[in-house]
Amino acid sequence: MAKVTFRFEEGEPVVTYATEGERLLEVAQKSNVPIDAPCSGNASCGKCRVRLVSGELDSKITRHISEEEYQNGWRLACVSTVKGDVEVEVPDIASAYRSRMKVADLSSPSEIAIFEDTKKKITDAGLELKNSMQVITISMEEPTLDDTMPDNERVTWAVQAATGLERVRIPYSVLKKMPDVLRESHFQAQCVVRVTANDVFLYDMLPMEAKAVVGGLVVDIGTTTVSALIVDMLSGEILAKASSGNGQIRYGADVINRIIESQKPGGHERLQNAIIKETLNPMISNMCRAAKISSQQIYRAAIAGNTTMEHLMMGINADPLRMEPYIPAFFKTNSLFASDVNLAIHPDAHIILAPNIGSYVGGDITAGALVSMIWNRPEMSLFIDLGTNGELAFGNSDFMVSCACSAGPAFEGGDISCGMRATDGAIEKCTIDPETMEPSYHVIGDEGTKPIGLCGSGIIDVIAALFRAKMVNPKGKFIREGRRIRHDKYGMGSYVIAFEEEAGSVRDVEITEVDIDNFIRAKGAIFSAIRTMLNYLDMDVSMIEEVYVAGGIGSGINMKNAVTIGMFPDIPLEKFHYIGNSSLTGAYSMLLSTAAEKKTYEVARNMTYLELSTVPTYMDEFVAACFLPHTDTTMFPSVEA
Amino acid sequence: MAKVTFRFEEGEPVVTYATEGERLLEVAQKSNVPIDAPCSGNASCGKCRVRLVSGELDSKITRHISEEEYQNGWRLACVSTVKGDVEVEVPDIASAYRSRMKVADLSSPSEIAIFEDTKKKITDAGLELKNSMQVITISMEEPTLDDTMPDNERVTWAVQAATGLERVRIPYSVLKKMPDVLRESHFQAQCVVRVTANDVFLYDMLPMEAKAVVGGLVVDIGTTTVSALIVDMLSGEILAKASSGNGQIRYGADVINRIIESQKPGGHERLQNAIIKETLNPMISNMCRAAKISSQQIYRAAIAGNTTMEHLMMGINADPLRMEPYIPAFFKTNSLFASDVNLAIHPDAHIILAPNIGSYVGGDITAGALVSMIWNRPEMSLFIDLGTNGELAFGNSDFMVSCACSAGPAFEGGDISCGMRATDGAIEKCTIDPETMEPSYHVIGDEGTKPIGLCGSGIIDVIAALFRAKMVNPKGKFIREGRRIRHDKYGMGSYVIAFEEEAGSVRDVEITEVDIDNFIRAKGAIFSAIRTMLNYLDMDVSMIEEVYVAGGIGSGINMKNAVTIGMFPDIPLEKFHYIGNSSLTGAYSMLLSTAAEKKTYEVARNMTYLELSTVPTYMDEFVAACFLPHTDTTMFPSVEA
Repeated sequence: MAKVTFRFEEGEPVVTYATEGERLLEVAQKSNVPIDAPCSGNASCGKCRVRLVSGELDSKITRHISEEEYQNGWRLACVSTVKGDVEVEVPDIASAYRSRMKVADLSSPSEIAIFEDTKKKITDAGLELKNSMQVITISMEEPTLDDTMPDNERVTWAVQAATGLERVRIPYSVLKKMPDVLRESHFQAQCVVRVTANDVFLYDMLPMEAKAVVGGLVVDIGTTTVSALIVDMLSGEILAKASSGNGQIRYGADVINRIIESQKPGGHERLQNAIIKETLNPMISNMCRAAKISSQQIYRAAIAGNTTMEHLMMGINADPLRMEPYIPAFFKTNSLFASDVNLAIHPDAHIILAPNIGSYVGGDITAGALVSMIWNRPEMSLFIDLGTNGELAFGNSDFMVSCACSAGPAFEGGDISCGMRATDGAIEKCTIDPETMEPSYHVIGDEGTKPIGLCGSGIIDVIAALFRAKMVNPKGKFIREGRRIRHDKYGMGSYVIAFEEEAGSVRDVEITEVDIDNFIRAKGAIFSAIRTMLNYLDMDVSMIEEVYVAGGIGSGINMKNAVTIGMFPDIPLEKFHYIGNSSLTGAYSMLLSTAAEKKTYEVARNMTYLELSTVPTYMDEFVAACFLPHTDTTMFPSVEA
Repeated sequence: MAKVTFRFEEGEPVVTYATEGERLLEVAQKSNVPIDAPCSGNASCGKCRVRLVSGELDSKITRHISEEEYQNGWRLACVSTVKGDVEVEVPDIASAYRSRMKVADLSSPSEIAIFEDTKKKITDAGLELKNSMQVITISMEEPTLDDTMPDNERVTWAVQAATGLERVRIPYSVLKKMPDVLRESHFQAQCVVRVTANDVFLYDMLPMEAKAVVGGLVVDIGTTTVSALIVDMLSGEILAKASSGNGQIRYGADVINRIIESQKPGGHERLQNAIIKETLNPMISNMCRAAKISSQQIYRAAIAGNTTMEHLMMGINADPLRMEPYIPAFFKTNSLFASDVNLAIHPDAHIILAPNIGSYVGGDITAGALVSMIWNRPEMSLFIDLGTNGELAFGNSDFMVSCACSAGPAFEGGDISCGMRATDGAIEKCTIDPETMEPSYHVIGDEGTKPIGLCGSGIIDVIAALFRAKMVNPKGKFIREGRRIRHDKYGMGSYVIAFEEEAGSVRDVEITEVDIDNFIRAKGAIFSAIRTMLNYLDMDVSMIEEVYVAGGIGSGINMKNAVTIGMFPDIPLEKFHYIGNSSLTGAYSMLLSTAAEKKTYEVARNMTYLELSTVPTYMDEFVAACFLPHTDTTMFPSVEA
């Protein structure tokens, strides 16, 4: 056995043992070392870079590592096998998606504005902002030798009196603490209850002097990025907010690769652990610390994710999703509790899932469709969720059609050599002087934060600017020369936005022809899906009255640039509205408002699902869309002008 | 730190470390070494005997270890402290209650006769032998591209069609296996369901070719002895049967000592683990092996125990039970599931508890009262459960009164130097020739099994025989001499039933004056409780029309001898009926018959609870009863004759 040591820029090294000939990437995966492998280890993405510190590896040479980099010890983990004891460094930048968690600073009004806005939208649509959770105070006679009623019956009587409901359900978790709480508080107590028409469920019992908080958890499980909130279920106030890379990333960038990985022995459990134990539970723990509440004070959760994410989170076999006839185990379920999946909140907390409507159109889009409000308007509206799974809905208060396309992780920085999530250090806006070819950019973070990569909105800006400056041709190949443009020995061109010395990382921040090509395919998938869906409905883009764009692509998206690269149809810019992470705000609405929850199920039921792969013209549309802006430039008159 | 090694007659030794001066008993308890300490380590019971193999212990000398035994290395763990590295042997006989588990041989008709009898009694009383569990077969259309209903909706439809009920509840555990079972079985499946008036709960889903067994678990948690069954819930057939010492014994012989122990840091968890993880789960695992089913095929459990046992099993603070005004956390609960308490059966299995009616009259007696059938007869009947907690009920179909007395573990062999549970090696019957003073006895087990101790029925026989042969006086002191009677240096007399060479253990099987004294106090507690309860009702023993005696005292109990020693009132012997472990048969009835379950709750509600400690005459009655047969011999005319 060879000893393998993984070092990190921060934190303790991980030491493990491997047999000779074992692939370094697999050694890392077995030891939970977070090396990204969005291509599942096929040497095609170049993300799994590590640097040899000591010892040797048997490594293949690929286009992803330059000769100089190879000399400096850089290797791809997926094409390196163990020869003997070895020590490698896993660079921070290699974690392209910056999977480290970030807890938001809620003192910034921009972080919470979108939720205030969501509450207003929900209320304006006539959905009451009220859920079944309450805090009630009960006061009982203390028992005596003549009044020896047991504790649980005493509490039941008091809760019946306080709520007027006959049926009171007391779970084990509450029965267990009941004798102590009652005696500590002289038979007075605060009860966290869920009150429905049929019964009262006693979630918690607290002494009178304790601070009763009815916490709720809201989660958007993206294929690439996970976002979460802890909210006060009574006021709707955001108590904490966090985002993180999805821990499943190291098992594949897209849903198909993850499903394939889940079919290997122990795969379901591994993928479930990656999202629950490695991603969500640490987020919950950090958010609770920020919100100064106990995780046991989170009594309900609303989770939205695409169909695969919801299955994998539950450890349920997702293989039938990718095999004809593409059947999910569930669209919705009413019987999922935190203890079922070891989610680290109150064990009896009910988990509500945003409903799926097909194997590739999931809860993220039904939750998003809810807050897009397209179901409540007469205008023909298009709702686009720019995720790894690109999902669309089109319609109005009379009808809705939805479909999904595989865009890949490019919008969230995946499949892009310097791509990253929209967090500190990401270039989120960029322009390029057509004359000097010098860039100006804006970096997320405090004043002076140095750039370490590009997030989705930044990539759109860079590609649009390169195209407008005629630095790249419609195929995305470099056609001008300059100090920021270079070509490697394979002839692949790239543009450096920030040289190493200006950057916050050990590498230049650049965009390569491969990156541009990946992004063109992502935007092409979206545009062709829009076209195919409209054709299917005998409509064209001129009939679109409003467009709602959602996704974690950046705090904003330059719609003009998105049209320039042919991602969105060439219609008046004022029709476009960026609505942020609508999967998260949708789940937030479902948690806070029982009426919104019900409405989401109704929206899901009423939405027709169009399986694009069954539409013969989709592939042609896609191929035609894989240009800047499109092979048919007449479709983009404003760009041509 | 000193290294402490515990060796056993069978199995691997346990090695641990202790600080000098630490009590050996506590070292053992921390390491889960089963050394019995029914007196909680007060050097009063003499049960915690160990033998020094190497090293030294700082040990006090007590009356429980003879000089010769001390020379041979025998020590009491409770008065021995660690001085340095030491190795001790924990003798099998020291485990007086034989806490090792025993799985019954069901080929012996005597093991199952009592359950057949119970079924008959229940049915004769008009309680239908039917519960809500069923196995149904469902058959669905396989999904196609035109029929993409998700699995759980497809199953819901099929179950609705099969049962005619609208509301189908599918828990996570079933949803998780559903995609695989459906596809393995071509969308046909067997479903284990619970069907009530309101809904169908889907406990399990199995492929068509699998053997569907609806297993149920029945448990009697005695303070000293735990008995359990696995039954087929559809037929009532006994699939396996086992008994074991209660793993909590090492924390104290009676409920009060256990509650005190539970109040120490981590105590609730330690006592809960001792019964669930160390006692019940191994019993379940062994029974499942014997029954050739999976523990996941046990979908429901009925558990009876006294109020303290039910609280400690649930990890619920039992301290209020022993403090005025003696309030339990619950009499009954409807929301306890196997996963709540880590009982190793199906996680969604509902655990039904035989209802408590007071802090010292618990589910064991309500379950027992059910099968005693005293609630269904016009005759004035007395029901006696001879446990560590002696519990009584008196009444008929019009009224019932119950009370409890602390008899101690003597009926199950506790507090008796050579006492043991009624398992292999126990002397269960004994006579003594009044002339020769030689004993004849019967040992439980195969032909030729050598005696290793005395179980409850054997102790009654021996004491009655000693008294009848005038070998002991009414105070239980030896008043004759002979080769089997000896006195130690403290003057304490004893009678040897089997000398070491005839016995199956390393010691003589004997009964000492201390044993007789302990037993007299146990029988005195029972008799004085009977008298006090009857006095309270303005009745006397002549009004008792039937007596039902229950308890794990032995396969039978010689009623004449029990009257001789003054344990039971001197009424015609034909009125006495031994009904075995009625807590177990009662729980068995509750599991199999929903009607019996409801009847038990009704019996519990209708039973008046008499707290003996509030009756001023009880203590006088008890003192008067602590003689053979009684201070007032006129109450025992047949004995006097």
